[in-house]
Amino acid sequence: MRIALYQCPPLPLEVGCNLQRLKAQAIEAAAQGVDLLVCPEMFLTGYNIGADAARALAQLHDGPAALEIAAVARASGVAILYGYPERSVDEQIYNAVQLIDDQGTRLCNYRKTHLYGDLDKSMFSAGEDDFPIVEFKGWKLGFLICYDVEFPENTRRLALAGVELILVPTANMAPYEFVAQVTVRARAFENQCFLAYTNYCGSEEDIHYCGLSSICTPDGKQIGLAGHDESLIIATLDRQLLDDSRALNTYFNDRRPGLYSGLVER
Amino acid sequence: MRIALYQCPPLPLEVGCNLQRLKAQAIEAAAQGVDLLVCPEMFLTGYNIGADAARALAQLHDGPAALEIAAVARASGVAILYGYPERSVDEQIYNAVQLIDDQGTRLCNYRKTHLYGDLDKSMFSAGEDDFPIVEFKGWKLGFLICYDVEFPENTRRLALAGVELILVPTANMAPYEFVAQVTVRARAFENQCFLAYTNYCGSEEDIHYCGLSSICTPDGKQIGLAGHDESLIIATLDRQLLDDSRALNTYFNDRRPGLYSGLVER
Repeated sequence: MRIALYQCPPLPLEVGCNLQRLKAQAIEAAAQGVDLLVCPEMFLTGYNIGADAARALAQLHDGPAALEIAAVARASGVAILYGYPERSVDEQIYNAVQLIDDQGTRLCNYRKTHLYGDLDKSMFSAGEDDFPIVEFKGWKLGFLICYDVEFPENTRRLALAGVELILVPTANMAPYEFVAQVTVRARAFENQCFLAYTNYCGSEEDIHYCGLSSICTPDGKQIGLAGHDESLIIATLDRQLLDDSRALNTYFNDRRPGLYSGLVER
Repeated sequence: MRIALYQCPPLPLEVGCNLQRLKAQAIEAAAQGVDLLVCPEMFLTGYNIGADAARALAQLHDGPAALEIAAVARASGVAILYGYPERSVDEQIYNAVQLIDDQGTRLCNYRKTHLYGDLDKSMFSAGEDDFPIVEFKGWKLGFLICYDVEFPENTRRLALAGVELILVPTANMAPYEFVAQVTVRARAFENQCFLAYTNYCGSEEDIHYCGLSSICTPDGKQIGLAGHDESLIIATLDRQLLDDSRALNTYFNDRRPGLYSGLVER
């Protein structure tokens, strides 16, 4: 499978412009043989927009933005994972990502479970116990959003459920470069899976995003790595590498769940 | 607290020589104001010695080596953490580490719980559900051995129990440099603790150790880092840095244990 990460500065509140540039990137990705394009957290609206705007711009998971993005995916032949403020039927607002395949079909929707700081908590309800896993082009995909990936429990949960590629739209800012530089590589290696981390670059009010979007492999390498500017990072995921790495690193045979009970105590 | 890591090539089967060089390092560490000296996994006997030698050289945790090392600690005024093959009263052989304080008192003993590969499993029984925590010079210390640290569950368990410094004697070999370069830094950061990883350098039969012993901080830095040669790495741990980093990185407030039940299923 060939994936692309679209690292870009946020365009806050500009839903129409964001859909336009998504379309341009999907066309470019298609020209480069990409199967799946991954955008940052809250790509549709920008991230640092405040609770009122998040509520005003929030959409149902099958709302108008989903329809437009489905059309982009169908037209380009590229599946799209994008972040957006989701309005649920009971009027909660979630920090969500949705995957729409190259036929325009909504494959799944994930709501951020681990909200970060006052900004996240002021805008969103936390997702409940629902970590969807979906098969796409023969690969099992799982989803996390930004701060979620900093908790080893979340990637572990996905890996134990068989996920082979973890997709992580993010809005990671200074001074947390460590997460982009170190944490995501450790997550891929310790769980023997691929991991794609798509961040913003540039700034949004007082938030300075740290870029460094990356595609990490199960053997600890980065086969795609952005700098601090807008870019489309592309890499091909090699299933043989996954199999070889898992044969060498047998963490899942060697775990001792009987020793981990403290991790689930409240 | 000031700690020293003694990275060295193993001297297999040479218990007397290992005690001699430990004494020399303790004296050097004392001269540099060190409180605690950390040696590699199975330092007393070497690691790649086979099951027969491991059994033949194994000692009770209060056996003659413990007495000699207690004398070294008392004489130098430096606490010592060392790896050794432990014979239990019921004649099991464990891959263990023991901490002896600067008064010569045995503070605690930990038996490796996650055995690595055929060599470990041929020599040792796995430790059971016992991860001792001890207070030393006002710091809460926890212990892991080599492969143990590669499982995020183990460091998490210690951190949830309040550990501030995780000590990890290891015998990490090529091609697993990733663990020394990336994993241990992620463990310190994600658990907001200090972590000291003391490895071998050099070779032992067909095992080529990768060195790179390090002292990692809760904010993701390495304040001590060895290369591939014998060395004594020294650093001072700053409690203010720990407090500041924990104030900024609130993982332990933001965990959601109710979502992690899959991690303890067998």
